[in-house]
Amino acid sequence: MQPVKIGIIGLGNVGSGTLDILAENARDIALKLGFPLQVRALCSRGIAHKTFPRDFDSALRTTDWREVVSHPDIHIVAELIGGTGVAREVIEAALANGKSVVTANKELMARCGADLYDRAIGARVNIAMEASVAGGIPIHAVLREGISGDRITTLYGILNGTCNYILTEIERRGASFDDILKEAQDQGYAEADPSADVDGFDARSQLAILSALAFGERIVPDDIYTEGIRRIMPVDFAYAHQLHHTIRLICTARQTPAGLILSVRPSLIPQSTILAGVRGAYNAVWVRGKYGADTFYYGRGAGPHPTGVAVVSDLMRVAREIKAGSPDRVSPFAHARLGEYLPIPITLNESAYYLRFRVIDRPGIIAQLAAALAAENISIDSVLQLPQANWRDLPFVITVEPTTEASVRAAVARMAELKFLIEPPLAMPMEQSL
Amino acid sequence: MQPVKIGIIGLGNVGSGTLDILAENARDIALKLGFPLQVRALCSRGIAHKTFPRDFDSALRTTDWREVVSHPDIHIVAELIGGTGVAREVIEAALANGKSVVTANKELMARCGADLYDRAIGARVNIAMEASVAGGIPIHAVLREGISGDRITTLYGILNGTCNYILTEIERRGASFDDILKEAQDQGYAEADPSADVDGFDARSQLAILSALAFGERIVPDDIYTEGIRRIMPVDFAYAHQLHHTIRLICTARQTPAGLILSVRPSLIPQSTILAGVRGAYNAVWVRGKYGADTFYYGRGAGPHPTGVAVVSDLMRVAREIKAGSPDRVSPFAHARLGEYLPIPITLNESAYYLRFRVIDRPGIIAQLAAALAAENISIDSVLQLPQANWRDLPFVITVEPTTEASVRAAVARMAELKFLIEPPLAMPMEQSL
Repeated sequence: MQPVKIGIIGLGNVGSGTLDILAENARDIALKLGFPLQVRALCSRGIAHKTFPRDFDSALRTTDWREVVSHPDIHIVAELIGGTGVAREVIEAALANGKSVVTANKELMARCGADLYDRAIGARVNIAMEASVAGGIPIHAVLREGISGDRITTLYGILNGTCNYILTEIERRGASFDDILKEAQDQGYAEADPSADVDGFDARSQLAILSALAFGERIVPDDIYTEGIRRIMPVDFAYAHQLHHTIRLICTARQTPAGLILSVRPSLIPQSTILAGVRGAYNAVWVRGKYGADTFYYGRGAGPHPTGVAVVSDLMRVAREIKAGSPDRVSPFAHARLGEYLPIPITLNESAYYLRFRVIDRPGIIAQLAAALAAENISIDSVLQLPQANWRDLPFVITVEPTTEASVRAAVARMAELKFLIEPPLAMPMEQSL
Repeated sequence: MQPVKIGIIGLGNVGSGTLDILAENARDIALKLGFPLQVRALCSRGIAHKTFPRDFDSALRTTDWREVVSHPDIHIVAELIGGTGVAREVIEAALANGKSVVTANKELMARCGADLYDRAIGARVNIAMEASVAGGIPIHAVLREGISGDRITTLYGILNGTCNYILTEIERRGASFDDILKEAQDQGYAEADPSADVDGFDARSQLAILSALAFGERIVPDDIYTEGIRRIMPVDFAYAHQLHHTIRLICTARQTPAGLILSVRPSLIPQSTILAGVRGAYNAVWVRGKYGADTFYYGRGAGPHPTGVAVVSDLMRVAREIKAGSPDRVSPFAHARLGEYLPIPITLNESAYYLRFRVIDRPGIIAQLAAALAAENISIDSVLQLPQANWRDLPFVITVEPTTEASVRAAVARMAELKFLIEPPLAMPMEQSL
């Protein structure tokens, strides 16, 4: 059978992994599809890659992406450069030229996914983005096909491997955030500028995509309350363990009667939940449906080959559709657009909370903190204080019964006056429904 | 848009759950698809079901499945009666009449799936079976699309919820297999004749389907070494925990240089693996790929609604293909058929093993058992003996270093002569690669 022809733009981590798999696994891919995939063009600044597909000699190699998106032979363009600048131009030009697109670009799809899908539908071509969320976990296939008959009510995700690695190393070794971040940077696991990871922005992009797909509404990153992990200390794990919980950077999208609660924030989760077993650089997604109840998906969040599998699997699916000629589709980003579950402010979140204080020890501290909570009608559930040597920086914890984020914030604001606090209290929700 | 019309045959657990979802979730389904699904006919012995789709008044209700499979309006037949007798007739007749088929039938698809797919391909229609493996876990969508670009090397599954419930209750409460089985039967969780579950046959059917899809070879239930959980005692969990392991009924399909090792058997798995967190009636599938590394999928293994989600999601996918008119496909059961990874005998399995003995205590026991192992060149890794009151039925454990199943069986055969053994030794592999 005639091959479906692919143009790859970008030969970084994801591009190299994709090319490896297309080269080494070509026979299996052709057997599964009934026809081969052929890499017809490759655009990158340098070609240092060593594993090329067998028929690659005749392929176009260029540094100008415009040659790829306008090439008459090419059916699918794989945009693997990332970012929201050139990548957007590449995708828009490819779609305008009647090419289908496969992308790994989480930031772009989070911001412009709905618009790009509308363009693809208008051009009667396809756009696929399995690699844009949770690397090697095929969560798009799951939502699009595997459980498409369900009505999703809640999503929880651990979507940033760097944060999960740092948190589980703090937990395992009791080292500080700064020390472990530096280690991870030295070993190349974390970026020199770690903000996109540790401040939650990378996870936020992924949650925007996931929740748009799950709930069918337009959801963009700015809809999502986001808080990073810089403030988490080893003692937080000691207290969390006392409560039979652990701490992860949890991405949440939860339907409530008032609307959709969206957040990326460090949260306490019960040690008994399977989500607590996600350690190191792994990612996971927990989906709760009205009919299918709980399902859980786990795998590598990044890496050339796991992400390459997602790209190649997308290429196969899009190629199959090209062979079959099935251009009619509904945007997965906004199939509903009924406005039934629009994002609502995080202040409406209801949860039990963990409040960690760092104080200079003196009499009357708990009375004053308790008074601030009582003034907002918040009930204390427990007060925890592990033995500490240092009275000048004493960390201790109050957990409170379910209340609103607004009440917690108001209580924390009342505490701003208290001179014995070394820093503002750290508040984390305790997820009870896992 | 015109609806795609469905005929449902069978209104047991799965049929009822399917009909509930088609009725209650009809609007979301139509929004996702761009067109509605319509239940045009229903065949069952009795119609006790209460939730019907809105336009169901005009549907055909019959007790004769032939009326459904020959109905000119119907595009897709959902076979939800189970078993290998009438169900096979239903599917063959539907395919012969040019209808696509959705089925939840694990036993039939395990035995005849490759043949039924060939018939479907010949008739240029589709056949879908998401519900046939692991209930609410969308593992077919994952293998078919989500990670189709990968080359799978190993699958592990916990595929029978009844066994997993019984094992985790033995673990949690220390009660006996018989007591917990009886409880489960009284509460309706286990069948009056529990053999299909506790002897591993239900799990075996599912593993046959999964491994055929993953490796592209013809694999049938008889290819799979199968051993149930009746011999597992509370003391086995005590010893397993000493070894930092737990016990589950593990379905394995593992590529080795010699071929494919296939088994369903109680196995020791490390407590640190996420698979050990699968408790109660849940199912899970662990997939190891050459490129994507490890991914893991978890959810409900049974139940009207979780299985109904799988059926409805299949109906949506097949309906989408009918609208698009894309009849060309490759059989997922045997895309490869290269004979590279054919099943090999379980005697070639290599693993560390756990051997549990029940003996009448007397001097020299360990020496005689050790001699039997030494005679087969098996090295002992550890000898474990928890304090026991009863010298007439003393359970203790020897673990051995990696060896072949053939050697273990030969050693066990040597032990048959030993008068102090109350029953033959129980041998379980210890999965180290999880």
